[in-house]
Amino acid sequence: MAEFISKIRTIQWVDNCSRMVDQTLFPYEFKYVDIKSGQQMFDAIRTMIVRGAPAIGIAGAHGVVLYAMELAKENLLRDEFITKLCEKADYLATSRPTAVNLMWAIAKQKEIIKNSNSDIDGIIDELKQNGIKLENEDIEINKKIGDYGATVVPKGATILTHCNAGALATVGYGTALGVVRSAFANDNSIQVFADETRPRQQGARITTLELTMDGIPTTLITDGMCSYFMKKGMIDMVVVGADRIAANGDTANKIGTYTVAIAAKYHNIPFYIAAPLSTIDTTIKSGDEIVIEERSHDEVTHINGKLICAPDVNVINPGFDVTPNELITGIITEVGILKPDYNQSIKKAFELC
Amino acid sequence: MAEFISKIRTIQWVDNCSRMVDQTLFPYEFKYVDIKSGQQMFDAIRTMIVRGAPAIGIAGAHGVVLYAMELAKENLLRDEFITKLCEKADYLATSRPTAVNLMWAIAKQKEIIKNSNSDIDGIIDELKQNGIKLENEDIEINKKIGDYGATVVPKGATILTHCNAGALATVGYGTALGVVRSAFANDNSIQVFADETRPRQQGARITTLELTMDGIPTTLITDGMCSYFMKKGMIDMVVVGADRIAANGDTANKIGTYTVAIAAKYHNIPFYIAAPLSTIDTTIKSGDEIVIEERSHDEVTHINGKLICAPDVNVINPGFDVTPNELITGIITEVGILKPDYNQSIKKAFELC
Repeated sequence: MAEFISKIRTIQWVDNCSRMVDQTLFPYEFKYVDIKSGQQMFDAIRTMIVRGAPAIGIAGAHGVVLYAMELAKENLLRDEFITKLCEKADYLATSRPTAVNLMWAIAKQKEIIKNSNSDIDGIIDELKQNGIKLENEDIEINKKIGDYGATVVPKGATILTHCNAGALATVGYGTALGVVRSAFANDNSIQVFADETRPRQQGARITTLELTMDGIPTTLITDGMCSYFMKKGMIDMVVVGADRIAANGDTANKIGTYTVAIAAKYHNIPFYIAAPLSTIDTTIKSGDEIVIEERSHDEVTHINGKLICAPDVNVINPGFDVTPNELITGIITEVGILKPDYNQSIKKAFELC
Repeated sequence: MAEFISKIRTIQWVDNCSRMVDQTLFPYEFKYVDIKSGQQMFDAIRTMIVRGAPAIGIAGAHGVVLYAMELAKENLLRDEFITKLCEKADYLATSRPTAVNLMWAIAKQKEIIKNSNSDIDGIIDELKQNGIKLENEDIEINKKIGDYGATVVPKGATILTHCNAGALATVGYGTALGVVRSAFANDNSIQVFADETRPRQQGARITTLELTMDGIPTTLITDGMCSYFMKKGMIDMVVVGADRIAANGDTANKIGTYTVAIAAKYHNIPFYIAAPLSTIDTTIKSGDEIVIEERSHDEVTHINGKLICAPDVNVINPGFDVTPNELITGIITEVGILKPDYNQSIKKAFELC
């Protein structure tokens, strides 16, 4: 199988700071920013300088290192240091409540903290090394997801995606767009349709940017158009990412995903989720238990800082929706493509790890 | 039944010109513009200063009058005048090819031209009077649509609508939003959810404006959100307008409508079209025959003049989609609510006229 070389590295621990692409500047600038403190990382996650579940996870891991480096300057006893660092880590986890990878990566760092036998400097070094290990694992996992996913992409397929589950949502290859990259490496006649993904337009701002940077043919459509193209036979499959997957396969992803899934079902078009196992939260039985964050109304009422509606209109802005398992053809993971019944296949996938 | 008094008059023949609300300025300004020549009217229709099928129809009727007034200055023989005016009328009909009301109203004016026994000044006077008659009829028709539609709005309902089939799409009451107005006049606990309606955002820019001006509670949502709120039981029915309806009930409406219809079907929520009989084109058997205009790519790639995506991305921008009759609960017209089988009910409705 040919390998795809991407130009994009979203987040990396370099020079004792977390270097990340500032995604709030898209599509106008592609610029790196160095995050140098824990609070700066909290804000970067909250304001979506870094976004995408796996990238947020790595940002969380880096954030714990940054907090540790700050606390090391306070001349604390080792026990105090550990207590305070765990508090900071828990605070950092509240920056994006729906992102399970954030909790997961922070929990990994807390394990290091609690199990270490080293002194404070040693703990910090172990946290740094673990952060770098998580980065490398993320890329490896995405490549595996991509390669498994590519096996179900028909020759010359047009793949619809929603939001951005790409290199820019991960450390550097992508989940949904990892599938696209792996498929494209072996068949350069495939192409992508990218939903704009209102309100924050990640599809327009981010997906079109990263795919055209990597030379993959991409067509931008507005969110309401998907059914039109499906009916015309112009879309062969849908692949999207996930923010959280329940034990039964119900999947929380960017608002609008559920609508695409319903449209795919109506037109008998395969609808895949591409996500690492770390996105699966087996502690929640179904999507009903997933808390959906309500985001700022300005995201709906303003675009590029300009009002787009009557000033006194009501707004509700759920950041995510839940696609029920019955609409999902398969969940593409690093251990293979999980199929219904998801309660069974997810359980089995975790037993493989 | 209580009557609703709206503040909005979209288009009116006044002082020998066509006075219309300039809808390209929404939501920042509510300003009238006087259209004083035929070419100005062509451009006003093309650039959507006036939009919405019934309002475009009246604009077409006014446009023929404006061309007639211009040609009258050329000292033509009566026969030459008639030939040239009919050519201008045909040209005007090309300004929005999907809008059947435009063809319909222009055809009405051409009948006047061809059947008149008057001299040139007399023909112009007859065209003016016919334009005013069509205006008044449009409002009367919309009120009938509204009153029929109100009979199927449940008490306290939340009505989802897409695009703007309102007072601002018609002469002054609305089709889909005429249903809302008539329902609200009798039950002020109803409310509206308005789809933003990308790419041109008529829902955000126009629907929220006209409903809040008329005091009707309105919530703006993005196009991908509808399924989320449907699943939560927060939407009781969908009512949208139509740009063209085929003899079998298949309905062309603003792009994105079809996606909403599929979502409504999936959640067992009634999905209604509200449109005058003039929107029904019995010469086309099904939606397959409806030509969908492809609009400027800038509408997708730019918002308020600012680029929202990678500059080198592909775009397809169909202005409309076709909702198949199987997804439509009823078509609310001025002669009652048509139900499936639409081939039968549409035929019967025209026999009533």
